[in-house]
Amino acid sequence: MRIDLNSDLGEGFGVWRLGDDEALLDVVTSANVACGFHAGDPTVMRRVCARAVERGVVIGAQVGYRDLAGFGRRFLDVDPAELVNDVLYQIAALDGFARVAGGRVQYVKPHGALYNATVRHAGQAAAVVEAVRLYDPSLPILGLPGSELLRQAAQAGIPTVAEAFADRAYTPAGELVSRREPGAVIHDAEVVAARCVRMATTGEVEAVDGTVVKIEPRSICVHGDTPGAVAMARAVRVALTAAGVEVAAFT
Amino acid sequence: MRIDLNSDLGEGFGVWRLGDDEALLDVVTSANVACGFHAGDPTVMRRVCARAVERGVVIGAQVGYRDLAGFGRRFLDVDPAELVNDVLYQIAALDGFARVAGGRVQYVKPHGALYNATVRHAGQAAAVVEAVRLYDPSLPILGLPGSELLRQAAQAGIPTVAEAFADRAYTPAGELVSRREPGAVIHDAEVVAARCVRMATTGEVEAVDGTVVKIEPRSICVHGDTPGAVAMARAVRVALTAAGVEVAAFT
Amino acid sequence: MRIDLNSDLGEGFGVWRLGDDEALLDVVTSANVACGFHAGDPTVMRRVCARAVERGVVIGAQVGYRDLAGFGRRFLDVDPAELVNDVLYQIAALDGFARVAGGRVQYVKPHGALYNATVRHAGQAAAVVEAVRLYDPSLPILGLPGSELLRQAAQAGIPTVAEAFADRAYTPAGELVSRREPGAVIHDAEVVAARCVRMATTGEVEAVDGTVVKIEPRSICVHGDTPGAVAMARAVRVALTAAGVEVAAFT
Amino acid sequence: MRIDLNSDLGEGFGVWRLGDDEALLDVVTSANVACGFHAGDPTVMRRVCARAVERGVVIGAQVGYRDLAGFGRRFLDVDPAELVNDVLYQIAALDGFARVAGGRVQYVKPHGALYNATVRHAGQAAAVVEAVRLYDPSLPILGLPGSELLRQAAQAGIPTVAEAFADRAYTPAGELVSRREPGAVIHDAEVVAARCVRMATTGEVEAVDGTVVKIEPRSICVHGDTPGAVAMARAVRVALTAAGVEVAAFT
Repeated sequence: MRIDLNSDLGEGFGVWRLGDDEALLDVVTSANVACGFHAGDPTVMRRVCARAVERGVVIGAQVGYRDLAGFGRRFLDVDPAELVNDVLYQIAALDGFARVAGGRVQYVKPHGALYNATVRHAGQAAAVVEAVRLYDPSLPILGLPGSELLRQAAQAGIPTVAEAFADRAYTPAGELVSRREPGAVIHDAEVVAARCVRMATTGEVEAVDGTVVKIEPRSICVHGDTPGAVAMARAVRVALTAAGVEVAAFT
Repeated sequence: MRIDLNSDLGEGFGVWRLGDDEALLDVVTSANVACGFHAGDPTVMRRVCARAVERGVVIGAQVGYRDLAGFGRRFLDVDPAELVNDVLYQIAALDGFARVAGGRVQYVKPHGALYNATVRHAGQAAAVVEAVRLYDPSLPILGLPGSELLRQAAQAGIPTVAEAFADRAYTPAGELVSRREPGAVIHDAEVVAARCVRMATTGEVEAVDGTVVKIEPRSICVHGDTPGAVAMARAVRVALTAAGVEVAAFT
Repeated sequence: MRIDLNSDLGEGFGVWRLGDDEALLDVVTSANVACGFHAGDPTVMRRVCARAVERGVVIGAQVGYRDLAGFGRRFLDVDPAELVNDVLYQIAALDGFARVAGGRVQYVKPHGALYNATVRHAGQAAAVVEAVRLYDPSLPILGLPGSELLRQAAQAGIPTVAEAFADRAYTPAGELVSRREPGAVIHDAEVVAARCVRMATTGEVEAVDGTVVKIEPRSICVHGDTPGAVAMARAVRVALTAAGVEVAAFT
Repeated sequence: MRIDLNSDLGEGFGVWRLGDDEALLDVVTSANVACGFHAGDPTVMRRVCARAVERGVVIGAQVGYRDLAGFGRRFLDVDPAELVNDVLYQIAALDGFARVAGGRVQYVKPHGALYNATVRHAGQAAAVVEAVRLYDPSLPILGLPGSELLRQAAQAGIPTVAEAFADRAYTPAGELVSRREPGAVIHDAEVVAARCVRMATTGEVEAVDGTVVKIEPRSICVHGDTPGAVAMARAVRVALTAAGVEVAAFT
């Protein structure tokens, strides 16, 4: 029994900080590093890559829309032919810092609104897949099981890694409950930790209606943008280890 | 006898264009491709890289300050420790497109105010050199002979390539006449072409006071941002070839 | 008989230019001036405002999404509560330059994807209307007849001005034929000029199927981003004047 | 006896926050509100203006270089002819939000590197003065006593307000000790509060060598970007009030 923990890192910009990168790097096994389009300036990127390599945390390119003002959380209707290039640019830029640090980019995960868009938007999903294929088709794409993104990636021969969300409620169909609905986010760290143990050991999660759903994640996404979030991420890791699950990168 | 011709390319951004990339790619042997900080969006970068590889034109990273509004022509007092990372980011991003096109970044040339700053500013020159050293110390830096940039690059074991400017007047000390002075730019295409032939065949240029200066360039920089500039660049190439000078990349 | 001619101006940014502002200011009576979010830097804004006031051309705020890389042509799913503020910012900034030039912003017209979005997107239309209401509810909004934007503006007591497009084909329902369909844009300057005369004198336009549609515009939008476009705009103005239509601002 | 307390506010951008605007608005009498070039998005600007008006805090335009990545702390060699327009744009944009909130921009203070540059750089100082003169010559400029900025403002007939820094050490010449020198910043809140009382009641400050310097500030600048800074600002206000100094806006 083995599971990866991934989290968003390097999401500051210039003088601004977001989340506690140092604390999270002690918890997760895969770091989704922002690449400068929605967050992340070159100095942040280099530092996070260096720290990740030092601690043996795997570096992934967290690619997003060019939207600093919206933190990449707003859908942007980019022409897929241009989105390919926006994604390529971000992967390559981050890979420069990863290599300088002695590592390299080992997977790609879309951020925010691009993540959500590529669940269903065939054109944008294809753009992300094409960017990865062009840059290095052996790089896995980390995403939502059942998403257009992972479906197209598989079709293109690109490795896919299904992830679950530690603190999100699921529908009986195995989808995330929308954040607009009550109960979409689970705030109790113990409950969250227990759910993660179940996901990792059985591949199952209990949906909001009590039914049990198979989601079989190879990675679980934890957050780190608040002190509470870091504590919850730590609780998840402790619980997994206590349950005999090896917390290790999927790569 | 052999000389390289380099020029700035890919300096559009989004809907905006600057210069005739297609025309210039038929004239020059080295393309200084903008990397997104002062100009150049990912789609322009990819297209220019693809066209350059098709025509056998060598790709260089034209790195600049993060200043789209000023086109990188305004000095920005970036902390050298951060400038290293800004330059690394740009080289790596462009290299992604170069590699996807079947080529790679083969040299680095600072743009605009960064070019001017690194002639004398030891800290910023060191930052550019350090970025190249970290990314790939075998990449030559293209710059002004006698500049702090080339001096430090040589000291760091990085190959240097001295360039001359086709249409600029020189002082008796071998420096460029400031653009603020009359006669700093030579507009007559025939005169410019003849000067380039002399530079390529003898390594000499006639300064504004009539004295002859040794500058010994391995590359000559031509412009392409106006129709007249493209015509002048063509005239330079024709004259060089007619004089028996091989126009070929310095790499 | 009287009609306004409006066009997009000031759409450069930094070193980049788009369209011939000087030429267009001799043709149009209303200038939709870009405000810095999709195009337009402060120096361009000030110059266009000064020239417009000199020639008696009315200044309007051409407000767009914060998207220089996409020139505001890509839908951006901005939260309406934030879009209000983005639009307010742009109107106020432009008004500063208009006032310094001795004029003032006299109307508001959304640009590109925001224009298209506010035809149907109730939330974004409401945001633009709210921004105008907060800034100055006496400022007219220029837009597509039948759009959500003009409907909500009227409901809020804000003056509305319906516009037609000189070179666009119309459906029998009075809507624009999508640019993805063949024949959506009319390229023959004489045909375009004749259609504009008919719009201005009868309020009618012939749709693609030959039926005649009442659209009753108070303003006609002409383009200026290519040499051909400027010539067409001039032809429209000449034809209108020849037909006895007074070309004058709607304000 | 009366003194103004000013502080930088609204320095977040998008998802990022900096400083505790709410807390500071209970302490200061003048709010230097960031205008979007070095920090401050439209939504932050509107909120801070609304809160300031609610609490009777005067709104000033904190204008800076266009440099989000450097937070306006890096000198940018903008052509003064363009800097005029950059500053005008920012003042006008903020004034829109101030007016919507029922107030208006009542003074201008340059931020960061622009503040430092205009102490000596005649061209950039002239640009800021010209922008204020064009927008509204009755708006005071807040700055360093003895600076080129205040000298030129006075010459142009623009009101000037001299400020002191609560936590900065002074040279015997009445200038700030450079941040690169040890002891440039005073960290003891009690010492800082006592110095402010002395500045406000006698116009004097004790320099690093023990000499007493007349600086006669009408405003004192306090910081709020850390929890400690807010506590220090509160301590300054409490001490001033206890000493019988009226803390009130200079306007």
